[in-house]
Amino acid sequence: MKVAKFGGSSVASAEQFRKVADIVCSDVERRIIVVSAPGKRYKGDVKITDLLIQLADAAIHDEPYDSVLEAIVKRYEEIARGLELSVSSLISHIADDLQQKIDTYRDAPDRLMDAIKASGEDHNARLMAFYLYSLGLEAHYVSPREAGIFVTDEPGNAQILPESYEKLKDLRKRHGVLVIPGFFGYSLTGHIVTFPRGGSDITGSIVAAGVGADVYENFTDVDSIYCVNPAIVDHPRQLKELTYREMRELSYSGFSVFHDEALEPVYKAGIPVCVKNTNNPAAPGTWIVAERNHNDEPVAGIASDVGFCSINISKYLMNREIGFGRKLLQILEDEGISYEHVPSGIDNMSVILRANQLEGEKEKRILDRIQTELQVDEVHIEHGLALVMVVGEGMERTVGVAAKATAAFAEANINIEMINQGSSEVSMMFGVKEEVVKEAVRALYEAYFSSHIHSL
Amino acid sequence: MKVAKFGGSSVASAEQFRKVADIVCSDVERRIIVVSAPGKRYKGDVKITDLLIQLADAAIHDEPYDSVLEAIVKRYEEIARGLELSVSSLISHIADDLQQKIDTYRDAPDRLMDAIKASGEDHNARLMAFYLYSLGLEAHYVSPREAGIFVTDEPGNAQILPESYEKLKDLRKRHGVLVIPGFFGYSLTGHIVTFPRGGSDITGSIVAAGVGADVYENFTDVDSIYCVNPAIVDHPRQLKELTYREMRELSYSGFSVFHDEALEPVYKAGIPVCVKNTNNPAAPGTWIVAERNHNDEPVAGIASDVGFCSINISKYLMNREIGFGRKLLQILEDEGISYEHVPSGIDNMSVILRANQLEGEKEKRILDRIQTELQVDEVHIEHGLALVMVVGEGMERTVGVAAKATAAFAEANINIEMINQGSSEVSMMFGVKEEVVKEAVRALYEAYFSSHIHSL
Repeated sequence: MKVAKFGGSSVASAEQFRKVADIVCSDVERRIIVVSAPGKRYKGDVKITDLLIQLADAAIHDEPYDSVLEAIVKRYEEIARGLELSVSSLISHIADDLQQKIDTYRDAPDRLMDAIKASGEDHNARLMAFYLYSLGLEAHYVSPREAGIFVTDEPGNAQILPESYEKLKDLRKRHGVLVIPGFFGYSLTGHIVTFPRGGSDITGSIVAAGVGADVYENFTDVDSIYCVNPAIVDHPRQLKELTYREMRELSYSGFSVFHDEALEPVYKAGIPVCVKNTNNPAAPGTWIVAERNHNDEPVAGIASDVGFCSINISKYLMNREIGFGRKLLQILEDEGISYEHVPSGIDNMSVILRANQLEGEKEKRILDRIQTELQVDEVHIEHGLALVMVVGEGMERTVGVAAKATAAFAEANINIEMINQGSSEVSMMFGVKEEVVKEAVRALYEAYFSSHIHSL
Repeated sequence: MKVAKFGGSSVASAEQFRKVADIVCSDVERRIIVVSAPGKRYKGDVKITDLLIQLADAAIHDEPYDSVLEAIVKRYEEIARGLELSVSSLISHIADDLQQKIDTYRDAPDRLMDAIKASGEDHNARLMAFYLYSLGLEAHYVSPREAGIFVTDEPGNAQILPESYEKLKDLRKRHGVLVIPGFFGYSLTGHIVTFPRGGSDITGSIVAAGVGADVYENFTDVDSIYCVNPAIVDHPRQLKELTYREMRELSYSGFSVFHDEALEPVYKAGIPVCVKNTNNPAAPGTWIVAERNHNDEPVAGIASDVGFCSINISKYLMNREIGFGRKLLQILEDEGISYEHVPSGIDNMSVILRANQLEGEKEKRILDRIQTELQVDEVHIEHGLALVMVVGEGMERTVGVAAKATAAFAEANINIEMINQGSSEVSMMFGVKEEVVKEAVRALYEAYFSSHIHSL
């Protein structure tokens, strides 16, 4: 049994719906379909979700919203017409449903926003089920409530409740193709609550784990995952296979394929993921699995992200002071700061964190606290740091991986501000100045994937 | 004004005493002399301090100690005779003093051990002062109590009390050459308390800081500090100059030149240190200073140490869990464990620590606590790790330092288990298996100091 999730661009138009139907019909194992809201059809197009946010904003601020509501309904109507479906009842249902949600949650803006946003996926799932049914398939729309997707009650940041998985098992007993909207679940008090960013991927992952699927197929608009950001390197190498851990490291820093939470349910259930292209389903796609044979390719990919800073602290005899590191991290925890890495020498320690956490007075306050409470010799912040991650399960047993990276930096005349590689880890982190991050990524790509001239 | 400390081998015999006298007489700025107890005169010789420990042990256990007491007195007598001093009163004073200390502290073994150990330096300082005086110098023995070296009252682990520095200033007003015994101070309750390992260096450093010396000269038996352990690399390069921070990183891991606490007082007072050879005082020695010009030589030295282990922890979505690192360090702190480095990836963290801290049940208990309290996916310990440190103030601004190191490892076919280099740090840490640590050090020495063929 396969669970197939189709992303926004895969369900953006009638033409895309037809591709999805072909994909579903071509394999009887594709028994559960999770759909996003209609995404962009072309560059510059507006996603339904963005229109829905406009709608909710207007309603919350008591501004007129008729035209945006109309634009939303029209998107579905266009899809339905393109599929030659009789649509009047469905379309009037959408308009009524949106209006009813606005009326219900007029005094609860967070709830209103969540309910309206979630409707994008919900209506699209209904439309998809209707279309598949019209093709002669036994297709059923299944709401997240019926499926059993129960979540915590924090608008916009739903977390799955463990009891959901027991309920989701029952979907195995259902006949036909089930179409479930992505992006949201229901709280135990009956409210619609959306998942954080990447929500439809999370739904697909939860459903796949719940039913114990053989594979979780994630249909998108690229043939595969690339080993490096294609916006930095032209036509980079495609990945056939990578592990959950590699994917997580990559998605964390600059790879927008999956939100980092999305893979947790399938990771825990040990269900392989296949990323495929709705527009070219014959391409093999990229498999995300528990283990891969990495003898040939110790490095899976290179990721990067900007916007980091480093708090650098020095104190003579720091390393003899039991509790120093713990007290430092306690200050950050008190201030609600999460950090990425803590490289250290004998008498100094750096804390790498996302700089956007230090807005306003916070930076000064944290530096003052470190100075006063830890009695350090010196503390200062270095801004404008980028992190570049070389990711690969095979690295830890391979001689020369670090040598290739550092030689590539040296040849490109890039200074390494920081290096961090732990025992049994799947990534090697380099800190560089933001200005040189693209050069750094290109240099690493050259070293690992492009040429063998530089190999040591 | 210079404070000159003479180590054990520099004051081991009459011949060595003469060299010290020549050194003292050759520079009128050498106004304060700190001496160790007589050390080894040849390979296989016994240090006075070891004899004193035997004496104290025997007295504590009510065993006969006449022969060892006699051997101790005889060492001083030989030195005195070799210097053609009239010695009878001095020698009988030593025997009486040791006997009196045994009688006084018969019921306080810790005190007895400290008092007896400290006597090695004390009697040697008296003898040195007497000898210098006999040469016509205005030399005075000054006891630590008279000098103002007041310390905490923990036998064998004295820490200087801040008020000492005020008192030590008065030594500037004294005339002649002052001879102070190293290794111990007096608690405020009047007891002799010895410093931890490297105690005479600590005394010299404290006195130099207290009197605001122009330089703290540390006389030993080598011409200079080497850039790498001569037991691993034959005839390594001598260092002309290094910074306090570099010295501290080096002495921490495998360089036995200074105990890591010894330099703190001069570091804080900004007093330069010169390491010189008593047997070859014309050699320029090695200077330890606050800043050095490191344009030519970004790397100062290479140090290594064995006996480390790594606790490796992984947990999916670890990096989203605010407080995870703090809780982990809290467990270690509860268990009285100090750690060296905490390299981390997105979902994993390693803690590097000295393995001798995990004796007995502790290892299992710590792993259990991490598993239970932090709900990690996996935790295990990797034993047999060595750390190799590349140390140098210039590294952080120099492209290619890391490349040289990692290329050297790759060429020597050595796998790097860990790398740790923080922003604005003075060292780069590599973790390797203990079996290959010497090869690793030699490979790095080749890369940085020996040849320029491999340079990038």
